[in-house]
Amino acid sequence: MAKTKAFKPKARRPRGFEDRTAHVLRAERALVAAASAVYERWGFEPLETPAFEYADALGKFLPDEERPNEGVFAMQDDDEQWMALRYDLTAPLARFSAENFQDLAKPFRRYQFGEVWRNEKPGPGRFRQFVQCDADSVGAPGPAADAEMIALASEVMGAAGLAQGEYVIRVNDRRLLDGVLESLGSAAAESRMRVLRAIDKLDRLGLEGVELLLGEGRKDESGDFTQGAGLDADGRARVLGFLDAAGETRGDVLKALTPVVGSGVGAQGVAALEEIDAVLSALGVDETRAAFDASIVRGLGYYTGPVFEAELLASATYEDGSPMRFGSVGGGGRYDDLVARFTGQAVPATGFSFGVSRFAAALSALNRLDSAKGDPLVIVIAAEKDQMAAYFALAAELRAARLPDGRGLRAEAFVGGGNMGKQLKYADRRGAEFAVIIGSDEREQGQAQIKDLKLGAQLAADITDNKAWREDQPAQITVARGEVVSAILKRLEA
Amino acid sequence: MAKTKAFKPKARRPRGFEDRTAHVLRAERALVAAASAVYERWGFEPLETPAFEYADALGKFLPDEERPNEGVFAMQDDDEQWMALRYDLTAPLARFSAENFQDLAKPFRRYQFGEVWRNEKPGPGRFRQFVQCDADSVGAPGPAADAEMIALASEVMGAAGLAQGEYVIRVNDRRLLDGVLESLGSAAAESRMRVLRAIDKLDRLGLEGVELLLGEGRKDESGDFTQGAGLDADGRARVLGFLDAAGETRGDVLKALTPVVGSGVGAQGVAALEEIDAVLSALGVDETRAAFDASIVRGLGYYTGPVFEAELLASATYEDGSPMRFGSVGGGGRYDDLVARFTGQAVPATGFSFGVSRFAAALSALNRLDSAKGDPLVIVIAAEKDQMAAYFALAAELRAARLPDGRGLRAEAFVGGGNMGKQLKYADRRGAEFAVIIGSDEREQGQAQIKDLKLGAQLAADITDNKAWREDQPAQITVARGEVVSAILKRLEA
Repeated sequence: MAKTKAFKPKARRPRGFEDRTAHVLRAERALVAAASAVYERWGFEPLETPAFEYADALGKFLPDEERPNEGVFAMQDDDEQWMALRYDLTAPLARFSAENFQDLAKPFRRYQFGEVWRNEKPGPGRFRQFVQCDADSVGAPGPAADAEMIALASEVMGAAGLAQGEYVIRVNDRRLLDGVLESLGSAAAESRMRVLRAIDKLDRLGLEGVELLLGEGRKDESGDFTQGAGLDADGRARVLGFLDAAGETRGDVLKALTPVVGSGVGAQGVAALEEIDAVLSALGVDETRAAFDASIVRGLGYYTGPVFEAELLASATYEDGSPMRFGSVGGGGRYDDLVARFTGQAVPATGFSFGVSRFAAALSALNRLDSAKGDPLVIVIAAEKDQMAAYFALAAELRAARLPDGRGLRAEAFVGGGNMGKQLKYADRRGAEFAVIIGSDEREQGQAQIKDLKLGAQLAADITDNKAWREDQPAQITVARGEVVSAILKRLEA
Repeated sequence: MAKTKAFKPKARRPRGFEDRTAHVLRAERALVAAASAVYERWGFEPLETPAFEYADALGKFLPDEERPNEGVFAMQDDDEQWMALRYDLTAPLARFSAENFQDLAKPFRRYQFGEVWRNEKPGPGRFRQFVQCDADSVGAPGPAADAEMIALASEVMGAAGLAQGEYVIRVNDRRLLDGVLESLGSAAAESRMRVLRAIDKLDRLGLEGVELLLGEGRKDESGDFTQGAGLDADGRARVLGFLDAAGETRGDVLKALTPVVGSGVGAQGVAALEEIDAVLSALGVDETRAAFDASIVRGLGYYTGPVFEAELLASATYEDGSPMRFGSVGGGGRYDDLVARFTGQAVPATGFSFGVSRFAAALSALNRLDSAKGDPLVIVIAAEKDQMAAYFALAAELRAARLPDGRGLRAEAFVGGGNMGKQLKYADRRGAEFAVIIGSDEREQGQAQIKDLKLGAQLAADITDNKAWREDQPAQITVARGEVVSAILKRLEA
């Protein structure tokens, strides 16, 4: 370490980045494994693109050469070309598909999970690096391919442990609103982006707030004024009626929408949703799992047809009893223009994406993803430092054992420093179920002590009479050395 | 896509970065899953640190402010602090351990896998982003903890599908050589780094080349001269004799080394290896799995005691019959000074790391990691575009089926564009085992055609008489619609 000399750096993370530890990672990995198994089963193949893409491939065109970092983490390579860390998994897929277009079997069906980076101001719960998980079909033109994505999203929700009624995929088609605006005349069509932005705020502002934004505009609590879309009363009523279209079944919703969206592009949207409905029904994805909802906008970006959002309906409560709201954990839709950015040739594509951390955190709060807990842990105490080989051998025996339900044990011999008390505290902090102690007495008598740490902690909390507790410690048993594994398995089965 | 206007970026990856596709990823994931299961079983907990660290935490001190990218990908954050992408998983672990030292249960046992980045000139097979997989115990002082790492490495080799004799972990202790140099006097001890570098070239230059580098120096083929360590004839003989120390068993090797390494620091190294031998023997890790080898140097960096390297001995051949050499796929050792960089307080630590891509590629060449193949794939042909719902339903039936060995089927309905010929070609390129065709005739008769694509390809290759083949196509069968799944399962079981 000659290089460090007197300099002593402070141990700290860059702002907006997090270290993820065991509990969070086990939940995230269980989720990604469940989703990956679904994607594999449906014929999607894994792909991993690198963290870096050329900045122009990401769709960032460095308008301000002084601030190439705007929104992304960018840097210049040796040859002066700007590279940036990917901010989603869709732009790299478009680059990959365009780069390998001739060689790919089409449709190209791939799934990818991995980190994405956003160079934004960090805030509470807002990180500059997080994990996404996507599945896409590139070169897939029809609504059947969109229906497949919606069914896939529903199956992922189920694989994540959510039952019927605990989630819903809300489905819409961008062209429905375009049809409404078309029927209102060219001025309305030109204000499309403002209308979309207004609808996107339905959750937050309610129908009343949206109506203001569809009209002249809206002043918020702070006094800031947002310019509206400028629709007249009839236009506003038509759009609000459109958003409100409802029905028992997906077919009923379509029946309510059909007269509102016109006979042009809107009718194309209805036809697409009809085909989606047929495929979903054939796959057993009923209205409780995937519903039509004309108010779904799904961002303002690159979608060109069907869009959908996966929403959690299951509820959990904070310790103070107040309800946790989870909302949207993912979504997707059709984007037919992304590959064309590179090739000039439109390539129809559709996909589904979810935020791994957000979704996994919600599932943890709902007590799903059992595997997030890890198998029972046993710590073999290093009572005599010259008996480490024997302790390691015992840990290996424990690791080789299996419970009737197929689970195994995690086991380690203590390799740190410190006396027995410190080691027992370590076992406790690691969440171990058992500690095994073989001191010199036990060794000479061919015995071992097994401490049931969970039971011990429970008894310690229950029993106020310390003396009685000390005299009768059922949480600690002595067994023959050869019986350690079977005694622990027996306790765990009980 | 209004923003893109006329600009059309070229679809290409930044230099030195690769896209990894299904075959490679399935192998890498099978390997990481096998290693992770071993780490979990041994009581290591998962950790993921972010891609970015502050540059000073990585041990890069920006000597040249004009070239902050030297060796790492670095950039300045909004607040002018330099951040860099991690170049290994050990420096972030040291930062994490120092940052959370008070709160961690010690020893802190964690495993981590993930990308690391090196800003180096890319070359054939040399990438600027690759995946490492590490396990470490931080706060673990004794040789027993090193022995555990070696046993763990051996178990990972086994979990990766390697049998006894197909790999070996070569173990050494840095202090042995220090003992030899100590016994040669202070001048020799001062040339330690040159001696280490000379020994590190044993594989490439042989004993003769190393002897030159231990003495005055060596001129290579191009005429470049490398300054030697300046040892005299006796010193060179002692070091070479040390490197050559051999024996049947680990005990024999230690017996041969003991008189060579002196009674000071060298004897400490021998004592450590003796304890390591005892623990390995107790764990059933014999000489064929972990051998002592005084020539192992393991880089020149931060190791302070025991070091080891995992080497593949199994061999495979290229298509031309020439042998593939795999060599080292990982290694590790004890580093007691890394956390002290931050805290000033020495924290004993030991770990094991392997290169995922390199190791997985070797295992693929050796035909290990069966799961890398994926389950059998069935493509349901989209013969009639208005029957997509029925095709999706059939694909779902296929996905729900299970083979007696527990494997399932991957199945998809074709969602791309193109006629039957194109779709069958797609099925072929995807490596599908079967294509199912239900055209209007089959639909009306309640039937389906199953094409056995692998058998078809084999028959096409075997049979030269096209006419006979066309008349008798055993690779294509017609079954009742309700029998499609069972017919496919029967073929796969045969």
